[in-house]
Amino acid sequence: MNTKKQHLDFYFDYLSPYAYFSWRKIIDFCNENEVELTIHPIVFGKLLDHWGQLGPAEIPPKRKWLANYCARYARQYDFKFVGPKFHPFNPLTALRLSLKEVCGVEQKKVVNAIFEAGWSHGKDIGDLQELIKILDSSGIDGSALVKRTMEPSIKELLKHETAIAIELGVFGIPTMIIDKELFWGNDQFDHMALYLKGEDATDKALIKKVLSRKRAIDRKT
Amino acid sequence: MNTKKQHLDFYFDYLSPYAYFSWRKIIDFCNENEVELTIHPIVFGKLLDHWGQLGPAEIPPKRKWLANYCARYARQYDFKFVGPKFHPFNPLTALRLSLKEVCGVEQKKVVNAIFEAGWSHGKDIGDLQELIKILDSSGIDGSALVKRTMEPSIKELLKHETAIAIELGVFGIPTMIIDKELFWGNDQFDHMALYLKGEDATDKALIKKVLSRKRAIDRKT
Repeated sequence: MNTKKQHLDFYFDYLSPYAYFSWRKIIDFCNENEVELTIHPIVFGKLLDHWGQLGPAEIPPKRKWLANYCARYARQYDFKFVGPKFHPFNPLTALRLSLKEVCGVEQKKVVNAIFEAGWSHGKDIGDLQELIKILDSSGIDGSALVKRTMEPSIKELLKHETAIAIELGVFGIPTMIIDKELFWGNDQFDHMALYLKGEDATDKALIKKVLSRKRAIDRKT
Repeated sequence: MNTKKQHLDFYFDYLSPYAYFSWRKIIDFCNENEVELTIHPIVFGKLLDHWGQLGPAEIPPKRKWLANYCARYARQYDFKFVGPKFHPFNPLTALRLSLKEVCGVEQKKVVNAIFEAGWSHGKDIGDLQELIKILDSSGIDGSALVKRTMEPSIKELLKHETAIAIELGVFGIPTMIIDKELFWGNDQFDHMALYLKGEDATDKALIKKVLSRKRAIDRKT
């Protein structure tokens, strides 16, 4: 048995419904598995820029499919899904508000309030005044926190968090990292639980072999 | 109760491990839910070209994550995962072999043999001679079928199938279509089962509203 408490890093952006769905599970998951959680707001758009990828909202039929998927998922797990008032929206203020350096010990409360207001109650979580209202009604001084998000050092910090995530190989939202293992997406909880129990399925020698195999073809760029 | 037998269209490419994972479930799923299955080989690369998207093998950290995910998934569901000898590979002959017009009543057998040989046994399913061997050892005349894949009309047919899929809004692999509803990915079986029971979760009015909402921001192109 490893006696040192294990650690999970959770990378998210409010733009992603998958991030919201994972958020709804992650705290219980960490408690049940006795894992310390670190919450990292990062800028999804910068990941897409960096890896040259499109987001689901940028491919019309994927956007349509995703709206249906979200409604199905929410009914399956019995919570309200409405989706933010506008989408995509500018998530920067919401993300900066969610940095530990801004919201401190209230971080989980802040993240939860913003996610729920947007995805379950249809609020415009890209709007500054709306964000203040959301925080105020959660018993947090919204104006004071929003003021802090305008500090250059806080703006830099969000950029820095995003850059570090990219360096670690984060390519999608949500991503959970335990040790140096990435778990991407909303459907990774069983794999993470196995990993934490020391029952990770991956044969590292095989994975290495798979990854070192030759490419027989590549698309024309 | 609807007395007319329902229908499921399964769109796949051998390049996708998710397609293999879905394939391993789809026949039982269709039998259990009394659904008629139509199997559509299509060209994943053409979907990516059309929607301007990158495949998982084209983003280095995603490729790495996916190899780990596949190994984890295969151990979770207790089957062998090795991955094809080369990846990406040219899937065109394998896909043409899998057209109903080429393999006829043997379609399920052919698709199964190719998928298993590649993803569970590490064969080069981009290689013509290897494909002949795979089919021969499944009791199918591989040479005769491979010869048919070289006919211009068969080449056209694969293009046509892919073009139709794109028209229907297929943006990823695997995609399952029931009526005109798309289900994308390997984790949609519970949603499809609910749909087939007439218990689809989507509130069509809400989805329409969600999809007609304004975009507040877009990335610079």
